[in-house]
Formats: sequence, C-alpha cells, structure tokens
Amino acid sequence: MGVCLSGAVVHSTFPQEKVHKIDYSIYPTSEQLMMLIKSRRSNRAMSNAMIPKESLQMILEAAHRAPTASNSQKVFFKLIENPDDLKYISDFTIKTFEKLIKLLQTPILKLILKRIMPEAYKYLPAFNRLKIEHEKGNDLIIRKAKAVLLIYTPKSNRFGKEDANLAYQNGSLMAESLGVAQFYLGFVCSALSQDKKRVFNKRFGIDGTIHAAMGLGMPLFKYENFTDRNDIGPIS
Amino acid sequence: MGVCLSGAVVHSTFPQEKVHKIDYSIYPTSEQLMMLIKSRRSNRAMSNAMIPKESLQMILEAAHRAPTASNSQKVFFKLIENPDDLKYISDFTIKTFEKLIKLLQTPILKLILKRIMPEAYKYLPAFNRLKIEHEKGNDLIIRKAKAVLLIYTPKSNRFGKEDANLAYQNGSLMAESLGVAQFYLGFVCSALSQDKKRVFNKRFGIDGTIHAAMGLGMPLFKYENFTDRNDIGPIS
Ligand SMILES: Cc1cc2nc3c(=O)[nH]c(=O)nc-3n(C[C@H](O)[C@H](O)[C@H](O)COP(=O)(O)O)c2cc1C
Ligand SMILES: Cc1cc2nc3c(=O)[nH]c(=O)nc-3n(C[C@H](O)[C@H](O)[C@H](O)COP(=O)(O)O)c2cc1C
Repeated sequence: MGVCLSGAVVHSTFPQEKVHKIDYSIYPTSEQLMMLIKSRRSNRAMSNAMIPKESLQMILEAAHRAPTASNSQKVFFKLIENPDDLKYISDFTIKTFEKLIKLLQTPILKLILKRIMPEAYKYLPAFNRLKIEHEKGNDLIIRKAKAVLLIYTPKSNRFGKEDANLAYQNGSLMAESLGVAQFYLGFVCSALSQDKKRVFNKRFGIDGTIHAAMGLGMPLFKYENFTDRNDIGPIS
Repeated sequence: MGVCLSGAVVHSTFPQEKVHKIDYSIYPTSEQLMMLIKSRRSNRAMSNAMIPKESLQMILEAAHRAPTASNSQKVFFKLIENPDDLKYISDFTIKTFEKLIKLLQTPILKLILKRIMPEAYKYLPAFNRLKIEHEKGNDLIIRKAKAVLLIYTPKSNRFGKEDANLAYQNGSLMAESLGVAQFYLGFVCSALSQDKKRVFNKRFGIDGTIHAAMGLGMPLFKYENFTDRNDIGPIS
C-alpha cells in the first residue's frame, strides 16, 4: 500500500511537457456517460473486419490511465493479434478444461472432490459443451476476436487484481465509445489460474500474473436496445 | 464461470418495460471519454459540503451497470454516510495497523518475519505515520469523505474481486463526470483482509467479502491540469 499520503502530488521536477490543460468544454455530461455505461455490453458477435490501429491504441491508452495502488503504475499490457497466437489461447483454455473434466470424472476422486469442491461440478456441463463445440470448430472461448488484450502485473504488486480490473473497465468503455466490440475472457483467466508451470506466460514472454483478458473485434451489428439489470437491492 | 455460451441473450419472457432504446445521439465521443479518463484523479482534497443525493444515486447506478462473470449480478453495495460509521471505518483501519506495527516490531518475531514477509517492513514507516497523524486528529484513511461506498460479493462468487473492481471504475468515472471527488480506500481494504473474525462486516450487516471501497466527497477546488503517466512500455 501507498506511502503517498500527502494528497495532491506536487513534483517540482515534474517535466512541464507532461502537464496538460483539462478541456472541460468537451467533458461528457453525466447523462452522456450513463448512456454509454448502460449500453455497453459484452458483444460476442464479431465480423471478420480488422480493428483500426488507432482504436486499439486508444483502448490501451484508456486502460493505462486507470488508477493504481500507491501510483505504482505496475500494470502491463500484451496485445495479441497474430492468428496462430489467438488460436493458441483458445486451444490452451480448452486443453486445460479437458484435463479438469478428466480429473473431475475419475471414479475414485469423484467421491472426494464432490465434497471438497462441489462448485466445480456445476461447471462440468459448461466445460463439456465448450469442448464439444471446439471439436466441431466452434470457438466459444475467444470467438472471432481479432485481438486479445492481456492485462498483467508483477507478482510483487499486492493490488494486482484490483489495478488490472480497474484498467479493464476503462479500456472496455473506450472500446464501446469507439464502436469496437469487446468481452471479458473469464474462461481464459480460469485456465490461466491452473497453469502452475506458467507455460502460457513463457510462450508470450510475460513475467507476472495475468489478471484480466479482453477479446476485441468489430461488431457484426449495432445494438438498438439495452436492458435493465436486476434491481440494485438495499444499499444502506 | 459462465454457462451463457450463446452470445446474445434472448429471453422471450424478458419484460418489455426493462428494455430501452439506446440513444446514440447523446453517446460521448471517444475524445470526450478520453478527456474524462485522463483528467479523472484521486481527489483527496474535500470540502465540508454534502454530496447531492442524485449524484450518489448515479454513481451507484453506474457501478451496478458493470459486467459480472456469468451475468451473476452478485455484486452488492453499502453506502455509509453516518459520521459515527465513517469514524468507525478510520478507527478500525488504524487499529488494525497498530496491531501490525506491534507484531512487526516484536524483537523475536522480527528476525523471522523480515525473512518471510520483507515487503511488510516497507510499509512500516507509512503505517507509523498514519498512526501518528491519527492521534493528532488527522484522518489520512478516509480524510474528509462524506460517504464511503463498499463493494462486496458473496463468498461463492469466484470472480468477486474482478466484478467488484469493474464496478468501482464505472462508479469512479461517473463521480468524475458529476464533479464529485473520489479516491480508492486501499488502506481500508488492506485492514479488512486482516479481519478474520469479520468484526467489521458484522457491524455493517455485510454478508460477503468487501473487495473495493470508495471515499466520496465534494472537491475543494477544480483541477486545471492533468499529467501523463509513465510510458506504457512494450505492448506486443
Ligand atoms: C469477470 C468476468 C468474466 C467473464 N467471462 C466471460 C467469458 O469467459 N466468456 C464470455 O463470453 N463472457 C464472459 N463475461 C461476460 C459476461 O457474461 C457478461 O458481462 C454478462 O453476461 C453481462 O452482460 P453484459 O456485459 O453484456 O452487460 C465475463 C464477465 C466478467 C465480468
Ligand atoms: C487499489 C488501489 C488502492 C488505493 N488505495 C489508496 C488509499 O488507501 N489512500 C489513498 O489516498 N489513495 C489510494 N489509492 C489512489 C492511488 O494512490 C492513486 O490512484 C494513484 O496515486 C494515481 O493517482 P490518480 O488516481 O490521481 O490518477 C489507491 C488506488 C488503487 C487503484
């Protein structure tokens, strides 16, 4: 945690070219932002179009501007666009789930595992379906994403998961405003948490822990509607 | 993880009053959003003014609209505004740090602890300073925040920290657009992670794990400038 206890950070040595005027005249109103926030959604219907380079840059820049604990700025990004690499991500995820399915269905183990990790069995049908679809050539992991953004932090960052997910949400709102489709790759993150030997990280030269992953592509169509969430429930 | 594998969610039973048209005419442009994202900052200089109720509602609504793994929507909010409760949060945090300071400085333990958790000793000066300032009546934990928003999830939510921090960032951008000052209460979260007996949660009737906390108040002044982050570094 932070040692920056003084509030406003004033560095007399802070280079002037890194200081910029805030242009409040182009600030979005809260109504504008709310419309964006309400219509943001996980859009998994992606076309074959490429994502414009400037859009990717803006998504990265937005993510990079998120706050970090103690202003460590120890959040890093890996953007993967190579088709072989993208395929590797899906295959890696499915292979991890296949191992899990096997483990969970081993007769002797089943009796014990059902007791100590009952939730795992809830996911069995989902894992099985992902696997079957994968064999048919349907990628339900990253779908038709043309890019995957991995967000990671060094092991020493004790607020790594917080920092990375704050960055994710900034990036995802930016994608929405740019008309770029995105969704959270939670299945990939689940598989990564099983990868004790860090095979995945080594392949991509990532030194740290991947806490969040975003699938990106161009949307097949524009949504016309948004729907409400469940009621927020009691808050005080 | 999710079983929602179908992409677009179509519920024939979805009540029509919960479906709304997206008004793209008021969508913020990516430049507008970027200006907001770049000028958002942890504003710890707060006045004694109260936060308008409608602003708090919009911050909550924005947080509540963030995505959740498998669309569980199992992210809950507790908004604390009562001055005694706010004081309790600071006192609780400082007391936890006092215990830590004692533990870390116990002569016999020190030798061992320095080996197994060297990072903890990095925080000692910060903890000490927080404690000394607290004794002088200076609250460096929640400062002059008029409200604290706790974001929590049930224990069963395996993506609790992710879901809660995605919600945090949505709420924090909304606060920024409303001219409400906010900062992340990481010290409080650190203290909470030590609270094995859940004394804090019981006091506030919270059944679950608190993953993120936001201090809120009205800003003493409007910032004129924003500063750049460190360079983003290699991304591919
Ligand atoms: C932590 C997390 C993990 C997720 N993992 C996946 C995933 O692996 N695959 C997927 O298609 N969607 C995934 N999602 C997207 C959710 O299913 C989606 O956010 C939820 O259904 C709400 O819909 P919305 O984002 O359109 O509002 C994930 C979301 C979160 C927050
Ligand atoms: C996970 C996390 C925990 C934080 N904890 C604290 C805190 O306890 N007290 C505080 O004053 N600021 C806290 N901050 C705010 C950071 O110090 C701040 O985000 C960072 O210095 C960057 O400045 P900015 O938010 O103004 O861009 C925290 C930020 C994050 C992301």
